[in-house]
Amino acid sequence: MEYGRKVRLLLRDGRSFEGTFIPSPNEDTIILKLNNGYNIGFQKDHIKDIIPLEEKVEVAKFPRRKPIYREGLKGVSIIVTGGTIMSRVDYRTGGVHMFLDPYELLYEIPELEDIAVINNILNPFSIASEDITPKEWVKIAEIVAKELNSGSDGVIIPHGTDTMHYTSAALSFMLRDLGKPVALVGAQRSSDRGSSDAFMNMICATIYATSNIAEVSVVMHGYISDEFCYAHRGTRVRKMHTERRDAFQSINDLPLAKIYPSGKIEIVNKNYRRRNDGEVLLDTKIYEKVALVKVYPGSDPEIIDFFVDKGYKGIVIEGTGFGHAPTETLHREKSWFPHIERAVEEGIIVCMTSQTIFGRTNSFVYSNARRLYNLGVIHCEDMLPEVAYVKLMWVLGHTENYEEVKNLMLTPLAGEIKPRSLEEEFINSGLKEKYY
Amino acid sequence: MEYGRKVRLLLRDGRSFEGTFIPSPNEDTIILKLNNGYNIGFQKDHIKDIIPLEEKVEVAKFPRRKPIYREGLKGVSIIVTGGTIMSRVDYRTGGVHMFLDPYELLYEIPELEDIAVINNILNPFSIASEDITPKEWVKIAEIVAKELNSGSDGVIIPHGTDTMHYTSAALSFMLRDLGKPVALVGAQRSSDRGSSDAFMNMICATIYATSNIAEVSVVMHGYISDEFCYAHRGTRVRKMHTERRDAFQSINDLPLAKIYPSGKIEIVNKNYRRRNDGEVLLDTKIYEKVALVKVYPGSDPEIIDFFVDKGYKGIVIEGTGFGHAPTETLHREKSWFPHIERAVEEGIIVCMTSQTIFGRTNSFVYSNARRLYNLGVIHCEDMLPEVAYVKLMWVLGHTENYEEVKNLMLTPLAGEIKPRSLEEEFINSGLKEKYY
Repeated sequence: MEYGRKVRLLLRDGRSFEGTFIPSPNEDTIILKLNNGYNIGFQKDHIKDIIPLEEKVEVAKFPRRKPIYREGLKGVSIIVTGGTIMSRVDYRTGGVHMFLDPYELLYEIPELEDIAVINNILNPFSIASEDITPKEWVKIAEIVAKELNSGSDGVIIPHGTDTMHYTSAALSFMLRDLGKPVALVGAQRSSDRGSSDAFMNMICATIYATSNIAEVSVVMHGYISDEFCYAHRGTRVRKMHTERRDAFQSINDLPLAKIYPSGKIEIVNKNYRRRNDGEVLLDTKIYEKVALVKVYPGSDPEIIDFFVDKGYKGIVIEGTGFGHAPTETLHREKSWFPHIERAVEEGIIVCMTSQTIFGRTNSFVYSNARRLYNLGVIHCEDMLPEVAYVKLMWVLGHTENYEEVKNLMLTPLAGEIKPRSLEEEFINSGLKEKYY
Repeated sequence: MEYGRKVRLLLRDGRSFEGTFIPSPNEDTIILKLNNGYNIGFQKDHIKDIIPLEEKVEVAKFPRRKPIYREGLKGVSIIVTGGTIMSRVDYRTGGVHMFLDPYELLYEIPELEDIAVINNILNPFSIASEDITPKEWVKIAEIVAKELNSGSDGVIIPHGTDTMHYTSAALSFMLRDLGKPVALVGAQRSSDRGSSDAFMNMICATIYATSNIAEVSVVMHGYISDEFCYAHRGTRVRKMHTERRDAFQSINDLPLAKIYPSGKIEIVNKNYRRRNDGEVLLDTKIYEKVALVKVYPGSDPEIIDFFVDKGYKGIVIEGTGFGHAPTETLHREKSWFPHIERAVEEGIIVCMTSQTIFGRTNSFVYSNARRLYNLGVIHCEDMLPEVAYVKLMWVLGHTENYEEVKNLMLTPLAGEIKPRSLEEEFINSGLKEKYY
């Protein structure tokens, strides 16, 4: 079936869907772009029939230009994965609509070619970021490595914002010996809106991709104004607001740099990898059966058994405060201790982080934490819970030996953990006092 | 057995423990204060024998004074529940040690009696806050109501900081028609340390308890300095750092007031309940089988079935971004949609919040959220995930009718939800731009 063809798809369970047939990253799956602009995947063995509806739709509604080569500019590749930055409102339906052709991006923001030569625009899939899974992380990492090792000076990855910080952490671990900048970039408002951040974020991401900072970063608005973007280290960033353009914030680390749309880059954090000519080493081995679990008052500790019984090999706990779980509660059925004990005894790696988000675990101040530490729980210092989750998946892809896992978890592989924190790494940084 | 008696406790499973016998909130349980200063509870039917070890220990090692009555001062009650604020390092063992007698607090901070008459100091239990469960919330609420309805002008609740914001939310819903201030207060550093916040926080909490703000608040350091505390609304606050003294931050709302240890109160947020003479109505009906579940890339949606199969009636999801869950992922086994659909079909209430913490859910912008909304998922607007969890427990204690639950969840009962957000309610409030 030809891509771009409108079809009606009949499922074995009786349901039917109409949409445009688009490329799938997966041989067992067929993807339709529905009329509301969203994509939906179908397993081939659930499909009864596919009926072509009309002539092939012309997807390129704009003149696709050849790249412009300007003397002295670096060459970058763009890997389009979906999200608001690749969308605009379809005024016929009112729904959000994704670009059908990734080159539409260059048509929307021709200024990109004043900053870099756009070597390549690739589009392995176009999905909302809440639908991204570790399999897509691997796919993206593979393409990034291929582009960098075949001559691109940097990579830009337009991505949905919801889980962009999980993807940035995953790429940080999968791209070993990185010698070039990799920018994940998104938009909180689609490009047809007057207040869209898509334009400035793409400009700043492209500037970042030509810089000397050889790190995976999230490049997004720095403040509510359109003055500058921050490049946040990929393992130290979190989406902290549902809708603000400055939703992404560095956590327990300073942003790497301030990037002005004029082209100026101000280094904020001198602790970063410099650009070099080495090849990036692609290492995408991950073990997927890892869970992230939050404790809270009244929480059911049998959730640990649920994962143990399903064959999970790693569990990251979002504990309270310094990294605590209920262990001496007055109500025995609410104590997590025996369940964590069982998991550890069965060889499952249990890591502890804090749901306070900011700060550092400490397993020595209070007896609850000491008891968990003595069991073999690995306290992940100042690592974000989400990053510890991604990292444990990657580490378990390489070894299941407890001592090796512990050693790797507590060794910085991509700036995700460090021994000392700075005063200005908290929310209130730069504030003498809030004005209220 | 007499409280204060040192005992050796033999369990049926062969283990034994030594400690001091202290009051238990629960008839089926016996509590020992271990030699490291921590409490541990034992179910009576697991105990084989209790052997008295020596003469009763004298717990009051300081002169217990009678309350001082000063003309014109308001009268407050203190309900001690445990935590760092009631602890100091035992220099013999190096461990953290909880006060054995709650009146030790007055000995440590006699200045409290310059601010208010201390009517009563009660100590239903002394536990680290990670061990607090909804049963303890009920116990605290009962005592608060009794104290307020028998003449106290305000209540102060020293509490561990880890889960203080969950308790403050629970009390906010359980204390209906509140006409007096209720201050939860903690310390990030124990009172024997030079940088302890215990002293100033207790002073400010006592000032708050004599104020005209009839709300449950968390009173903690406002900034890194010792200049002032904030009173954060009990349903709008979260511990955001593992160890900083200004770890507690108002989320999606302004703090209610700034409180200076000199006694000055500056109202920050005019939207608060005023002190009145009415009786507080105690309403502690909760349904405990409610879960808080986070989605993330690769997350296992069968976690929903785990709770449904265990008879849970409510599930609060910490979604991504505007309140999304994986619904159209390329890997069918990772889609949460069919599992949420099943839960809703079986009559379980499913609520959606955002793991961004700041901001507001929106079920209309993207199709993934619209699909969940159409199923009957309740999007909790600007309510914190932790607060939605506590509230859903309280709401399900009163009705299981879907329309009634939805209506109550989306109606402000204690300032936990509001229709419009303010610019200055985000992290960056008061900042033109961070200094870095």
